[in-house]
Amino acid sequence: MVTIAGPARPRLVDELRPAQEASADRGDLFDADCPTRQILDRIGDKWTVLVVLLLSDGPMRFTELRANLVRVAPKVLTQSLRRMERDGLVTREIFAEVPPRVEYTLTDLGHSLAEPIAVIGNWAEANMPRFTAAQAAYDAAHGD
Amino acid sequence: MVTIAGPARPRLVDELRPAQEASADRGDLFDADCPTRQILDRIGDKWTVLVVLLLSDGPMRFTELRANLVRVAPKVLTQSLRRMERDGLVTREIFAEVPPRVEYTLTDLGHSLAEPIAVIGNWAEANMPRFTAAQAAYDAAHGD
Repeated sequence: MVTIAGPARPRLVDELRPAQEASADRGDLFDADCPTRQILDRIGDKWTVLVVLLLSDGPMRFTELRANLVRVAPKVLTQSLRRMERDGLVTREIFAEVPPRVEYTLTDLGHSLAEPIAVIGNWAEANMPRFTAAQAAYDAAHGD
Repeated sequence: MVTIAGPARPRLVDELRPAQEASADRGDLFDADCPTRQILDRIGDKWTVLVVLLLSDGPMRFTELRANLVRVAPKVLTQSLRRMERDGLVTREIFAEVPPRVEYTLTDLGHSLAEPIAVIGNWAEANMPRFTAAQAAYDAAHGD
């Protein structure tokens, strides 16, 4: 009988895990059947990232979010916010005013994601020139 | 004449920026015309995240990457790797053996992304139960 070893787990993931954290009841990125992979897709979404960052400063109305994101289709933003509400990252509150005011607020779970996401956002801003230079070099070498 | 204020920048992004870093020649996530948003889409891709983590332990062949990712279509993995090569995150090296060996290695840029991504990966693993509980509660409340 041949035993096939399970997929490797990169060292870095476990090295960076807070020591006090229990390992039971925890997802596994390298288990293809684990919902953790789906979570990666959700929190990797560009609008999710930007909305979490904006709401980390406090609640915002739909119109404010839209104005700050500048180039987002209202339908796309609505869908992103609904997914974030379902995933437990934001709450949506309706205030009985005329016209009704709808406000989005980060949940505790959403707040806990803000700092890791801000680190990624900083990385993207800092390395933007290296990224675009690499793309130009690749395109030149591959005749695009 | 009406002056329209530019979009807000969340405090957290600037607070977490390393102090020594020059602010010139740097992207801006909240400028809709800046390529930084495109970078977010790239590094937010699920396969990019998992490949960066796997290669943070050392170079791997295509077949090893595929075996570790388990449920990825070869064509999708090939496309992800090609994008990562174009973006300057990995290099692809062909060794003249029989059969030829193709190896992927993280670049310095790719390595600099590994730790921020591992923090996000840990967040996803640790919060998987909260995520799925939130989804179940939302679906129950909304009659799905």
